[in-house]
Amino acid sequence: MIRFECDYLEGAPVQVLEAIAKANLEQHPGYGFDPHSDHAKDLIRQACRSPQAGVYFLVGGTQANLIVLAAGLKPYQGVIAPQTSHIFNHETGAIEATGHKILSVETKDGKLTAQQVKEVCRSYWNETHKLFFVQPGMVYVSQTTEVGTMYSKAELAAIYDVCKEYHMKLFVDGARLGYALEAPGSDMTLADLPQLCSVFTIGGTKQGALFGEAVVVMDDELSREFPYHIKQRGGLMAKGWLLGVQYEALFTDDLYLKLAKHAADLAVKVHDGLKSAGFDFYFDHMTNQQLPVLTQAQFEALSREYSFDLFAALPDGRIAARICTSWATKQEDVEKLLSDLKKLK
Amino acid sequence: MIRFECDYLEGAPVQVLEAIAKANLEQHPGYGFDPHSDHAKDLIRQACRSPQAGVYFLVGGTQANLIVLAAGLKPYQGVIAPQTSHIFNHETGAIEATGHKILSVETKDGKLTAQQVKEVCRSYWNETHKLFFVQPGMVYVSQTTEVGTMYSKAELAAIYDVCKEYHMKLFVDGARLGYALEAPGSDMTLADLPQLCSVFTIGGTKQGALFGEAVVVMDDELSREFPYHIKQRGGLMAKGWLLGVQYEALFTDDLYLKLAKHAADLAVKVHDGLKSAGFDFYFDHMTNQQLPVLTQAQFEALSREYSFDLFAALPDGRIAARICTSWATKQEDVEKLLSDLKKLK
Amino acid sequence: MIRFECDYLEGAPVQVLEAIAKANLEQHPGYGFDPHSDHAKDLIRQACRSPQAGVYFLVGGTQANLIVLAAGLKPYQGVIAPQTSHIFNHETGAIEATGHKILSVETKDGKLTAQQVKEVCRSYWNETHKLFFVQPGMVYVSQTTEVGTMYSKAELAAIYDVCKEYHMKLFVDGARLGYALEAPGSDMTLADLPQLCSVFTIGGTKQGALFGEAVVVMDDELSREFPYHIKQRGGLMAKGWLLGVQYEALFTDDLYLKLAKHAADLAVKVHDGLKSAGFDFYFDHMTNQQLPVLTQAQFEALSREYSFDLFAALPDGRIAARICTSWATKQEDVEKLLSDLKKLK
Amino acid sequence: MIRFECDYLEGAPVQVLEAIAKANLEQHPGYGFDPHSDHAKDLIRQACRSPQAGVYFLVGGTQANLIVLAAGLKPYQGVIAPQTSHIFNHETGAIEATGHKILSVETKDGKLTAQQVKEVCRSYWNETHKLFFVQPGMVYVSQTTEVGTMYSKAELAAIYDVCKEYHMKLFVDGARLGYALEAPGSDMTLADLPQLCSVFTIGGTKQGALFGEAVVVMDDELSREFPYHIKQRGGLMAKGWLLGVQYEALFTDDLYLKLAKHAADLAVKVHDGLKSAGFDFYFDHMTNQQLPVLTQAQFEALSREYSFDLFAALPDGRIAARICTSWATKQEDVEKLLSDLKKLK
Repeated sequence: MIRFECDYLEGAPVQVLEAIAKANLEQHPGYGFDPHSDHAKDLIRQACRSPQAGVYFLVGGTQANLIVLAAGLKPYQGVIAPQTSHIFNHETGAIEATGHKILSVETKDGKLTAQQVKEVCRSYWNETHKLFFVQPGMVYVSQTTEVGTMYSKAELAAIYDVCKEYHMKLFVDGARLGYALEAPGSDMTLADLPQLCSVFTIGGTKQGALFGEAVVVMDDELSREFPYHIKQRGGLMAKGWLLGVQYEALFTDDLYLKLAKHAADLAVKVHDGLKSAGFDFYFDHMTNQQLPVLTQAQFEALSREYSFDLFAALPDGRIAARICTSWATKQEDVEKLLSDLKKLK
Repeated sequence: MIRFECDYLEGAPVQVLEAIAKANLEQHPGYGFDPHSDHAKDLIRQACRSPQAGVYFLVGGTQANLIVLAAGLKPYQGVIAPQTSHIFNHETGAIEATGHKILSVETKDGKLTAQQVKEVCRSYWNETHKLFFVQPGMVYVSQTTEVGTMYSKAELAAIYDVCKEYHMKLFVDGARLGYALEAPGSDMTLADLPQLCSVFTIGGTKQGALFGEAVVVMDDELSREFPYHIKQRGGLMAKGWLLGVQYEALFTDDLYLKLAKHAADLAVKVHDGLKSAGFDFYFDHMTNQQLPVLTQAQFEALSREYSFDLFAALPDGRIAARICTSWATKQEDVEKLLSDLKKLK
Repeated sequence: MIRFECDYLEGAPVQVLEAIAKANLEQHPGYGFDPHSDHAKDLIRQACRSPQAGVYFLVGGTQANLIVLAAGLKPYQGVIAPQTSHIFNHETGAIEATGHKILSVETKDGKLTAQQVKEVCRSYWNETHKLFFVQPGMVYVSQTTEVGTMYSKAELAAIYDVCKEYHMKLFVDGARLGYALEAPGSDMTLADLPQLCSVFTIGGTKQGALFGEAVVVMDDELSREFPYHIKQRGGLMAKGWLLGVQYEALFTDDLYLKLAKHAADLAVKVHDGLKSAGFDFYFDHMTNQQLPVLTQAQFEALSREYSFDLFAALPDGRIAARICTSWATKQEDVEKLLSDLKKLK
Repeated sequence: MIRFECDYLEGAPVQVLEAIAKANLEQHPGYGFDPHSDHAKDLIRQACRSPQAGVYFLVGGTQANLIVLAAGLKPYQGVIAPQTSHIFNHETGAIEATGHKILSVETKDGKLTAQQVKEVCRSYWNETHKLFFVQPGMVYVSQTTEVGTMYSKAELAAIYDVCKEYHMKLFVDGARLGYALEAPGSDMTLADLPQLCSVFTIGGTKQGALFGEAVVVMDDELSREFPYHIKQRGGLMAKGWLLGVQYEALFTDDLYLKLAKHAADLAVKVHDGLKSAGFDFYFDHMTNQQLPVLTQAQFEALSREYSFDLFAALPDGRIAARICTSWATKQEDVEKLLSDLKKLK
């Protein structure tokens, strides 16, 4: 069985494992108050060209999302997010469990537009009796999105402008940020992010860490209060240095982006192979979550040797499968897959 | 600087690191639905002689506490716990943030008695207008306690009897369970725990894992619903196999208890050394958190070479320091410390 | 200014005011533990032919909704509700503030269908990894709906069947229940409700009480626990007898239904008058919230003498206005309004 | 049976009932956006000599407490309150249900001292790892307290000074504010309150309204956001004018204080009668909740003709009974009670 169902199948590259092994028997102060964590934070600030940013390490993505939103919203506020977003669909109501409504917006391609955000805000702020409605307090987008599409710099900037106009924070969930930055057509670097939002994450779990999400906070008040929220939500790791050493490794010699590039290149290979073999796409893009449309028969045939995610069951009976590449994906596995896919057509 | 401030200074023993490294490039299904996790759960069930128990892995202790309590309590119920307990004092209101009151009870030595629990329940159930009061729905104890004392089998059994009488669940927080089981005077084994409570944890973070708490659930309904609560609170690890392989290693060849024994033996050494040197104890016991009382001058003198936790500032100006041993504590460090302590008297 | 914007403009009919005045200087035990409340509950049980029902009085509708849902849902469950429902749109996130997601469903006419409910449930229960999704635990409908449509007995029964199949409770928000029961075409009586759902409200605020919603609970466990939830959410009235005496009055000599009939008859008059004058309807039905479509000019012209609710701004620039009748609406005001409306055409 | 168990046995004085009756068939805009509510707010601002204050009307006390605290605290903050306080003991965990811990302080006489508040704050702010602790964000006191004692101006001012020093809000729960203001020894007027705290309530339920608590908010940000919190917690009354007209009546011709004086004078009578008859007091003070200590036999004898609250069961087997006076208490009932009490000695 060759697995393509997600981008967190394997552990971590050798540099990360070695960093953990090397620090393993050092005696570290707890909770991330250790020199490795400090150094990792500095490396991230440098990579983002943002010496004032607050940087915090968390273990997982849902945890990061719920903490950022619970910290950034007032009790009567909600977060605007795409209907396809992870927080709206795949977190067992984690955001609502912190007391906040998700103001979901239907999108064409998993991406919010500045115009849509503006409409939600206008509609709220034009209400006579605003007090019956949930006030939009933040906007949540992910880069890449749940369906693999991605925002351009201009698109994010336009959303952020609307956010500033309506006194909202913008949160960019970067669980797959590296895979976006290295995808063909990307016009963004890590150093752009601090200008484009109030808070973003640099995902580790899917991009070369055993686990870990770095939260980069540009908003001063949010940053100052963030540690309290982390602890209260059970997100403070006793051995915080484990997150520190991993991000130290990932942000040394550009490892983070190199790993991302590997996945991005293989994603293009998968995409082009699928296209030339004549497959349709559920959403057609070049990032690391490829969503080809297969017949039931094709899906079953392939499932004997490969595992995919059943991303969506289409009304016509076909299946949108998710095929992910990651830093750990093997070139030969991709080639074998493409050759087997071709035979099905 | 030799550190004694807590029992989670170092990473993990070689067996645990090797287990991670070995599984690192395997392709694992996500979220703990992998063979390593299944195997680890079986090993734990065997060690606990409890084939029907639900076993779940979480990353950290506060996370475990808040999920167990949020899962086990109805909205109008609270948890009875010692005033010195971790949940009452050191979790930034994590339990209250899930909506539940902690019904705190002052104790002599960090331990609830069955009698105290009974009094809280009687007082509630005898109330005419119960609906104004928080109903006790669970009891929380930790083994060892926050101050290092421990429950005997009979003491826990008595508390559990009261719990059953008043339809409450009993939760034993075992962040340091192994250190209790291997302490001198312990009359309990892992196999006793399932008979003594509704749910307990087998702590990894402080006892040989890089991170991880195993939650063992004896209550059927709680067990069935537990995974939903885990995900909702951000506690579901994407690469759940990381927890699985660690607990596999810890529960192979009795590693977990061997590591605990190492810490327990050194704790006795520290205790006896302190005693013979004439130090008082804040709480006098033989487990891995020793709490000698030092003068300011002694504390400062030692702090040049050692780090301790300032556990409590006493009214007479002296300091109760916390000196922890763990699976990773070096015999020679303990000897040096005791010799330096003696010189201070 | 003649007001038609809602059905809670005036206080209460003379019978209700007199009942309060009469009991005013009696000495009542607090919190609804008084003979008037007991009697009112019995009258309601009789009217519903349901001697075992739990009956509880609350002050307002949002309060009733949030308490019923917080009491009836487990933390990881959500409630299925129409996208147009009051709880989804007009309660400032009150339901989410108790930790629960509203699983909203787009409807044709403000009414959920059994088929739609079934689809949500199927989709959830067919999921492989259910634990990422919010489990449907209750269904919320209102009778009449927010747009004035109403469920037939068969429609509610079909939804309730689906609820039972999927172990969900059905909650019927009856803020306007009487107005539904007395509307033309209604095939339901109060005595049918207990067979059609797990819990329902008999609205007072809009139907003849100064304030008050009676919650009738058929589910035994929900009923037993309900008082605790009421108190915890701040819904327990100190002078609960105020609710008791009002419902005593409303359920004596069929006052409740007589008041409803008055509103229902005038609603028909408004509807027929609008229709014969050639107005379109946003939703065309015969209940007490009439939603004619007006041009901007018509809306403004009428607003000089009347107040309406601006129910919706249509894409073509026209306005759906809400014209409500109630127990207090005057026949002559309706006639004047219809005559003025006719002149605008 | 003559009832003395609480101060909310009866409805309202004739002026309040008449005000409701008079406005009953007016057509009022909903939710307190009506002229009566506006006028009542102005009257309160005048009485408080505080033209800028935000004034909001709520139905009940627990509701007021939970809304004020949920609105005024950040998620990681808690409220300092006496262990005897209503919020800590008698609200079914309503505050914790909004996610906040109550930092309870043991008191001598139900009153927090500035010194005690300071110690809690110092202890928190001196902590090295503050992030493990609940940050004190507000202080809650009630005037009179749950045990009937009351704060002097200087005492409140001292607490408020500490609050300002540590960036906390001070909330004075005035469910019995009038009874405090009119008690012998009071050195405070309504006009002093705005200088002494961030937010306070002027209780109606126990002091002449059928129901209602006026929340007076001096903190600008809290005031601006307050309406959203009210609606979200189910506290917004549809017929808000009902609260408006009651407070209009109460704040016309000093009715509020006159009613309070009646209760206060009778309380003194009860107190002096008890004293001269030789009864001990659980807490000895002159306000409207008198707490004499009775033997079981005395308590039972009296309970044949009177109802009291069993306030506390004393270790020596005696009972602290609560005897309340209110605006509605009859002089002859007090005289009969005192005469019967005397006979028991």
